[in-house]
Amino acid sequence: MASQQSASAQASADFVFGTFATDELRLARLRAERRGLVHAQRITPADPLPGDEVHISVSIGPDIAADHVACYVTNDGSDPQGERGHAHIGQAVLLTHSHIEWDTLVWGYVSYWVAALPPQKDGTLVRYRIEAWSEHGSAHWACEIAGVVGGDPPDDLDPADANLFQIPNSPALWPVRRQGSYAYHVDQQHVPDWLRDAVIYHIFVDRFAPDAGQPFATPGSLSGFFGGTLRGTLERLEYLNDLGITCLWLSPIFVSPSHHGYDSTDYGTIEPRLGTIDDLRALIHGAHACGIRILLDYVVNHVSSAHPIFQQAFADPNSQAAEWFTFTKWPDQYLSFFGVTDLPQINSDAAPARQYMIEQAKFWLEQGIDGFRLDYANGPSHAFWSEFRAATCAVSVESVTLGEIVETPVLQRSYMGRLDGCLDFILMQAMRQFFAFGTLNVSAFDSFLQRHLAYFSNDYVLPSFLDNHDMNRFLWVVGGDTRRLMLAALCQFTLPHPPIIYYGTEVGLSQANDVRRPDGSGYAEESRSPMLWGAVQNAELRSFYKQLIALRRSAPAIWRGPRTTLTIDDANGLYIYRCGTGQPSALVILNIGLDTQRVQLPEHTGYTLALTSDPASELHQTMCLLPQYAGVVLWEQ
Amino acid sequence: MASQQSASAQASADFVFGTFATDELRLARLRAERRGLVHAQRITPADPLPGDEVHISVSIGPDIAADHVACYVTNDGSDPQGERGHAHIGQAVLLTHSHIEWDTLVWGYVSYWVAALPPQKDGTLVRYRIEAWSEHGSAHWACEIAGVVGGDPPDDLDPADANLFQIPNSPALWPVRRQGSYAYHVDQQHVPDWLRDAVIYHIFVDRFAPDAGQPFATPGSLSGFFGGTLRGTLERLEYLNDLGITCLWLSPIFVSPSHHGYDSTDYGTIEPRLGTIDDLRALIHGAHACGIRILLDYVVNHVSSAHPIFQQAFADPNSQAAEWFTFTKWPDQYLSFFGVTDLPQINSDAAPARQYMIEQAKFWLEQGIDGFRLDYANGPSHAFWSEFRAATCAVSVESVTLGEIVETPVLQRSYMGRLDGCLDFILMQAMRQFFAFGTLNVSAFDSFLQRHLAYFSNDYVLPSFLDNHDMNRFLWVVGGDTRRLMLAALCQFTLPHPPIIYYGTEVGLSQANDVRRPDGSGYAEESRSPMLWGAVQNAELRSFYKQLIALRRSAPAIWRGPRTTLTIDDANGLYIYRCGTGQPSALVILNIGLDTQRVQLPEHTGYTLALTSDPASELHQTMCLLPQYAGVVLWEQ
Repeated sequence: MASQQSASAQASADFVFGTFATDELRLARLRAERRGLVHAQRITPADPLPGDEVHISVSIGPDIAADHVACYVTNDGSDPQGERGHAHIGQAVLLTHSHIEWDTLVWGYVSYWVAALPPQKDGTLVRYRIEAWSEHGSAHWACEIAGVVGGDPPDDLDPADANLFQIPNSPALWPVRRQGSYAYHVDQQHVPDWLRDAVIYHIFVDRFAPDAGQPFATPGSLSGFFGGTLRGTLERLEYLNDLGITCLWLSPIFVSPSHHGYDSTDYGTIEPRLGTIDDLRALIHGAHACGIRILLDYVVNHVSSAHPIFQQAFADPNSQAAEWFTFTKWPDQYLSFFGVTDLPQINSDAAPARQYMIEQAKFWLEQGIDGFRLDYANGPSHAFWSEFRAATCAVSVESVTLGEIVETPVLQRSYMGRLDGCLDFILMQAMRQFFAFGTLNVSAFDSFLQRHLAYFSNDYVLPSFLDNHDMNRFLWVVGGDTRRLMLAALCQFTLPHPPIIYYGTEVGLSQANDVRRPDGSGYAEESRSPMLWGAVQNAELRSFYKQLIALRRSAPAIWRGPRTTLTIDDANGLYIYRCGTGQPSALVILNIGLDTQRVQLPEHTGYTLALTSDPASELHQTMCLLPQYAGVVLWEQ
Repeated sequence: MASQQSASAQASADFVFGTFATDELRLARLRAERRGLVHAQRITPADPLPGDEVHISVSIGPDIAADHVACYVTNDGSDPQGERGHAHIGQAVLLTHSHIEWDTLVWGYVSYWVAALPPQKDGTLVRYRIEAWSEHGSAHWACEIAGVVGGDPPDDLDPADANLFQIPNSPALWPVRRQGSYAYHVDQQHVPDWLRDAVIYHIFVDRFAPDAGQPFATPGSLSGFFGGTLRGTLERLEYLNDLGITCLWLSPIFVSPSHHGYDSTDYGTIEPRLGTIDDLRALIHGAHACGIRILLDYVVNHVSSAHPIFQQAFADPNSQAAEWFTFTKWPDQYLSFFGVTDLPQINSDAAPARQYMIEQAKFWLEQGIDGFRLDYANGPSHAFWSEFRAATCAVSVESVTLGEIVETPVLQRSYMGRLDGCLDFILMQAMRQFFAFGTLNVSAFDSFLQRHLAYFSNDYVLPSFLDNHDMNRFLWVVGGDTRRLMLAALCQFTLPHPPIIYYGTEVGLSQANDVRRPDGSGYAEESRSPMLWGAVQNAELRSFYKQLIALRRSAPAIWRGPRTTLTIDDANGLYIYRCGTGQPSALVILNIGLDTQRVQLPEHTGYTLALTSDPASELHQTMCLLPQYAGVVLWEQ
């Protein structure tokens, strides 16, 4: 029974990477990335400092015959323009040929070109575009995929893109490319320390807490309104403070017709169902008073089709509003979020749209919030985020930007210097494979962790999570077995990046059905049930989470590293690693196997139990006994 | 009609790369190359000179958890051995971790490790093996695919390999890996000049010329014996000398039950049907007297199952003969050429087999031959070829080794320093796509040529060809249109690498049917018809080839380069490039379009016609008129 549930849930978890779910999609993506003129933000250093020369790299696949490549660059924020090596706005820098590689997937050669852009002073936004041409042929511009449009393929669809967004069980979605406007910001901005130390709690405002004394509404469907509010959340600050979290991520709170708020019609106003701006200020004030930061969920990629600016664009293709969007065929064909026409996509490179999104973000920072979780951050251009982060850091150097980028680590890493970090979907997938599905063994999980953590720069934060609002809850996936949840959480909290708790996880909140509808018609909101309050909470689980948070906060050595693997026992499902080198260091022992394990500890003066996920665990001097699915943290003296 | 024929022929041409014919096969191959512990002969420099430090690179895919990598290395020819960083034979060199890459195809991280091996003196054979291990796990050895076995998959089949050799329309073939024994030879050997200057003529001995005055036999099937001999070939030296070729490549001449000879039972004796060792000596003597070199076709990869050494192995698994082969299940499951059990594969790393193959090669060099065309050269290990070439060059520094490697350019390039070059299958594919099938336009063909020629080192020769004995003849593919053949040949002869003419091409030899049997049962020998002699020869075509060879030989400037593209006209199918910079330089004009082209030549003192593929071409001072499918070479004064 449990294994059946796991098998179906696994496929669901894998669907997290929907655009990479099948070989066909992966091939289409890789080919599209190799066939044409590609920059893909390949700059060195990845996050330029004042005075750094910046090396850019461009590849040209077999689809393009070019013997010249130029970069047009400005350092005053203006949009660079040029043609065949001559700049009209800014400077032209010619690239030189570097080397050639063979690519078996596209069955052709790819040539690489490079150039150095001059050093800049602190605070400079460097904008650039890249053109390649042949003396005998037409010009090409490096481009990104701008987004997708549903329905018929656009006339100018590159054959290499044809399958790029045919997501399984979805109608065909066709990519549209845009002439790339690239940028990087030269600064000395670093990830604020508070973010590294954070324990983040993620709530759906409508599902977390109604006003004091009120019960949740019972709308009859998880798509309805349950009545959670900002005031209700404020009332529960004591709960959150007692739990020990240090950062609260609110689901979108701006005016929106939906319970989730990812389709706003007004970025300057709080949705009345959820409260008022004064309620938000009160929540910020109350949270800050107990050391809790507030992150808003912010959607730059798209707006509701009911947003007045889209309505103007829809009414008049010659209006300034029309520039905010990308119509492939006005009025009814335009870029939208995965082809959902209710969610038209913003052209983040259009100056008025860009300014609106930046100004609204600044306004909310000025109200006291501490930063943003950025929805579908790979939708807007990289250049947009370079400018966005410079603007938000100018309001507060302590503010943070965390992207949702459900893509490859290569793409996630490319936002280095443009965002403070991104949500760690790859780790989430591996944690679920290891702790929930059993499809990774200890060796593979350890190997993954070592490489994954080393792949990203130290100045880039990857908040960890076991589940979120778009997938099955971890607890449901493991058939309600809290031992496996606690074991996974124990591992999560001893890893370097800040952990996120999805509301209710700490008290046993689960779900009734798979998020995938059995008829294949799409995805339901099963993992967004209302928070459990009072006696229905799992007190044991909550107590464990409270201890876990307290341990992480009081003893940063357990996650700051270095982390050293001591035991990998695939046969027995035993995994042991040491955290820290100092006095004291900690030993983390995880038993993912089927049996109780008797673990002989390394020679040491002595051990004390810091935490266990199972009270039946026993420590006897240098021997530790762990029941199935138990984990312990031991202090080494 | 012609286009129908072309379409079917095209698929046939693509089948040249049978192991890369489908997405599934390409994916399987790429994944197999990324998942495990891979060295893939990545050394820098690729062809080490005396005194060069040699950097080796190893990648470790997500299937392998390893935190240590060691290389065991010898410089006295002995087989290095070691374990977990300690050498038993030779020296141990530890690799250091370099960097991590993400791979979307395998959906995991790949870590890279590097080390430097010490410089060696001239004439040193450096052998090495590479081991990776984890303190907590088992050891892994870098390996190559050793070959394939038909029938049931072997028990230890790596899942990543599962589809690696399921060639379309073939029974399943399963790869077997071997612990890689790597090697490189430190020397100052370079490609002999005569090979760069060569014009090569490729004959099937049985199909070229019977003894003087004899007609061909009429066996009733192209699998039968037509009676061509070495003496007959000697009789035709005058014909070859008149044509102007400088190198004759003979199909296999050792004892064999088949007409093609690729399944020998005795590498020391000439097949009696073809002649005697004295006949060969006479042919060599006669050829050398008119400046023609002789290459033998040499098959190291496999022998006939009737070879006495295989018969011994088949009879006794404990015989020394059994070490020559790789039995996965004695006596009837063993590595063989694409699963054909009549062609058991030699284990080229087994010392007795290696010595036999090298000694026989030396023997034939001592008889006066000038080198080898090496059949299926990617079957034997790279280490084998390093030793083979050192041994053959010791007999004669002017001798050459040319590999048949129907694989990616990446693999072809990896034989640099181990072979003098390889047959240019990728160019053949592109030439057929451009000149025969029309699936590449001028831009794409030019871009391919530029990158392809730049991808390989100058000290590596890639003989060019339009067809060979394993595919449809070019002339048949174009429906007998000699204009297209002459146009393609004109281009072939103005490119840098030595051209090969497949016997009879120069006199209009074609074929009756597609090499692919219509019932899908496999491939027939349609492109191996007997040579045309006498009045049935196409005299016009022969005259053109004679002029082409004479031009290439008398004016090396037309192929030595530099080659500069002047005109790419995709709309009209016009392609013009300049060869050489000196006095005189040459202009090559190719009209692959549908209409006659009137070409205005670049400003120059004057032009003279060096060669045209169509007598209707006209040169008027600075204007040149080319009928459809015509090409010209003009001298620029």
